[in-house]
Amino acid sequence: MNKNSFVLYGHILHTPTPKAFAVSENSYLVCENGLCGGIFESLPEKYNSLPLYSYENRLIIPALYDLHLHAPQYAFRGLGMDKELIEWLNAHAFAEELRYGDEEYAAKAYEIFAEDLKASAVARAVVFGTVHANSTLLLMEKLEQTGLCCFVGKVNMDRNAPEELCDPAPAQAALETRRWIEASLERFTNTKPILTPRFIPSCSDELMEQLSLLRREYGLPVQSHLSENKNEIEWVKELCPWSCSYGDAYDRFGMLNGPTVMAHCVHTSGEEAELLKKNNVIIAHCPSSNINLSSGAAPVRSFLEMGITVGLGTDIGAGWDISVFRAMTDAIQVSKLRSCLTDGSRPLTLPEVFYMGTKAAGSFFGNAGSFEKGNLFDALVLDDSAIKSPCGLSPTQRLERGIYLEKQLKIVKKYVEGREVV
Amino acid sequence: MNKNSFVLYGHILHTPTPKAFAVSENSYLVCENGLCGGIFESLPEKYNSLPLYSYENRLIIPALYDLHLHAPQYAFRGLGMDKELIEWLNAHAFAEELRYGDEEYAAKAYEIFAEDLKASAVARAVVFGTVHANSTLLLMEKLEQTGLCCFVGKVNMDRNAPEELCDPAPAQAALETRRWIEASLERFTNTKPILTPRFIPSCSDELMEQLSLLRREYGLPVQSHLSENKNEIEWVKELCPWSCSYGDAYDRFGMLNGPTVMAHCVHTSGEEAELLKKNNVIIAHCPSSNINLSSGAAPVRSFLEMGITVGLGTDIGAGWDISVFRAMTDAIQVSKLRSCLTDGSRPLTLPEVFYMGTKAAGSFFGNAGSFEKGNLFDALVLDDSAIKSPCGLSPTQRLERGIYLEKQLKIVKKYVEGREVV
Repeated sequence: MNKNSFVLYGHILHTPTPKAFAVSENSYLVCENGLCGGIFESLPEKYNSLPLYSYENRLIIPALYDLHLHAPQYAFRGLGMDKELIEWLNAHAFAEELRYGDEEYAAKAYEIFAEDLKASAVARAVVFGTVHANSTLLLMEKLEQTGLCCFVGKVNMDRNAPEELCDPAPAQAALETRRWIEASLERFTNTKPILTPRFIPSCSDELMEQLSLLRREYGLPVQSHLSENKNEIEWVKELCPWSCSYGDAYDRFGMLNGPTVMAHCVHTSGEEAELLKKNNVIIAHCPSSNINLSSGAAPVRSFLEMGITVGLGTDIGAGWDISVFRAMTDAIQVSKLRSCLTDGSRPLTLPEVFYMGTKAAGSFFGNAGSFEKGNLFDALVLDDSAIKSPCGLSPTQRLERGIYLEKQLKIVKKYVEGREVV
Repeated sequence: MNKNSFVLYGHILHTPTPKAFAVSENSYLVCENGLCGGIFESLPEKYNSLPLYSYENRLIIPALYDLHLHAPQYAFRGLGMDKELIEWLNAHAFAEELRYGDEEYAAKAYEIFAEDLKASAVARAVVFGTVHANSTLLLMEKLEQTGLCCFVGKVNMDRNAPEELCDPAPAQAALETRRWIEASLERFTNTKPILTPRFIPSCSDELMEQLSLLRREYGLPVQSHLSENKNEIEWVKELCPWSCSYGDAYDRFGMLNGPTVMAHCVHTSGEEAELLKKNNVIIAHCPSSNINLSSGAAPVRSFLEMGITVGLGTDIGAGWDISVFRAMTDAIQVSKLRSCLTDGSRPLTLPEVFYMGTKAAGSFFGNAGSFEKGNLFDALVLDDSAIKSPCGLSPTQRLERGIYLEKQLKIVKKYVEGREVV
């Protein structure tokens, strides 16, 4: 057994299913070679030789996963939130992304981002960079140093964006993207490339065709945006008159059949939803961003009823908060407002959103996000003692309260595949 | 000049109007005998003898006001948020409030509440206690020790609640309420009694008549709940068949013509809104609570257009977060979802919600919530250096970002009427 084998002791909570928290008070959680070895009330003899770390009265939970965020937008999070989507894109998102042509600026900004992500509850993330290959490699290098496991994409786009943010002609763009893919495959262990067409409105058919070839050649996963806002959907109809739906436009270029994560899906239903289901696309639900840009409230309950996998995204910088705990409670709140203002659908519950932010999202990374034997060992040890209470609470109540009052939680340890990163 | 006269130096921001932040970079803010003496680019000679506290590059803003929260519910904040209103009231709110018959428990719980409120950005608050007069006096004593200025109410109710949480017969209830009023007037300087009929469904007409007499005799302000949820409004129609609206039911007992703060008003419109306007009732908008209990999204934009004063409430424990900064951004988000899911009304802006949480709410306490000469000197000095940025930001951008990222703000100083309380 190597150094990534050990035992944690404390109150262990996770969601093997979205129905409820599974709780093991005062129990042992075994990590064997970076994988979960099981939860035990008393420690089996065969683990007696492993180092035992006792976190008495602390909460041990799976680490969280963020399925959608834009690293270059971290610098201006919390700014310009009074603006509408297009104004926001031009005044903030594109304006900031332009700066990442300057590698010195990129290094400074990505250092802050990587440090904050490392200190957060997140173990794995799916991250947008910018169109700049070198700055994106820089971002990957910073993330590699954190010990987290991330998929990172050099953005591809060649229309409807400032010229300096556009890829060159499609064949050249493919060359540059290939250079970035090869460099990142060669240089990093935990940080992997993911194909990242920004969204249909900013990618010509020719560019998509080139990316499609690269996807097949390298077997890369894909991240993009889908059906975030009504005007955008109309726009895609104009740009791709041959498509049956926005989702279909991606599908025609083979972008849905690899492992794919699609952010938002606020207005996805009917055939488009069926298409996602058929292709096992994972939806990154970004509740706060969807409010901030007045996109709406995604029909998460119906996705879940259809059996579509839904994880959570903070969508930095259209969302301002890097906390996936907060994304969980945001998801509940948005589902409640959707319910009472529109369709009466059943609001999401806390175990459901916890499942979304752990095990559901975890399926994008392998077997991860809960403590079943054989899963990747990604875990947090939490100290909630700053949240004072006049009476005793059960571990489940403490976790419940801690998720809502996340700003008062202290992360004592964070493990990624058994490696201690905080 | 007494000890509550001094000068602060730093970046000074406030909202004299809801249109925009007024910003004075590198300026002097004078406090004279607990009142604002003005903002100056260079300090007038006559203030040269006052102590000068330099907070270079720090942000100086008005302290915040919370117009609606339940102190006894602080103990279970963040718990039971998956429940609906009635189930939540019975399983959490009433169950917890019952414990405050035990003064030992009350002392322990209120100590935690008062300490956390003191450490928060709030200078003044309007607070519900429980039906228990002695425990409410205990709460007032704890709050008095913080240096904050609060209105606190012993709750009155005599129907549709657990028997142990009900007042005795109305005449006796009035005697007990009078005892509480007199004790609190005698014992406290900064902590004042406010008449607190819980809400119409829990107060018989006879009880309301008794409270009405007390209100006139002592000239007390009033706090209560209004039009929070549709079933509740139907219930009031049944209970008070003689009333034209829920608001009218309060008005018949003279509850709207003192200084009155009414929480929620999610479904207030038409005649009820006119009635509030005519009586200068202040609405405590509680956006997070209104989502958590699936009440809906209050029509704040139309209240503002009518000229009704709207402040903010955290509504602990139906809201879980004691931060009024968070209530500000919650208010923006709820207004955006209301807009895009229902009526297209213009979302609230950051200066508007800042104004609501400072100057608008401040009108309940006198001239307060902004730095015009003669106003009560309630101020915060903020350190936002934990929010790292790769580029320089203006003080307005820093405040904007700080409000959204409030959990990373550090309160360096808090002044209430010129007294340093943090």
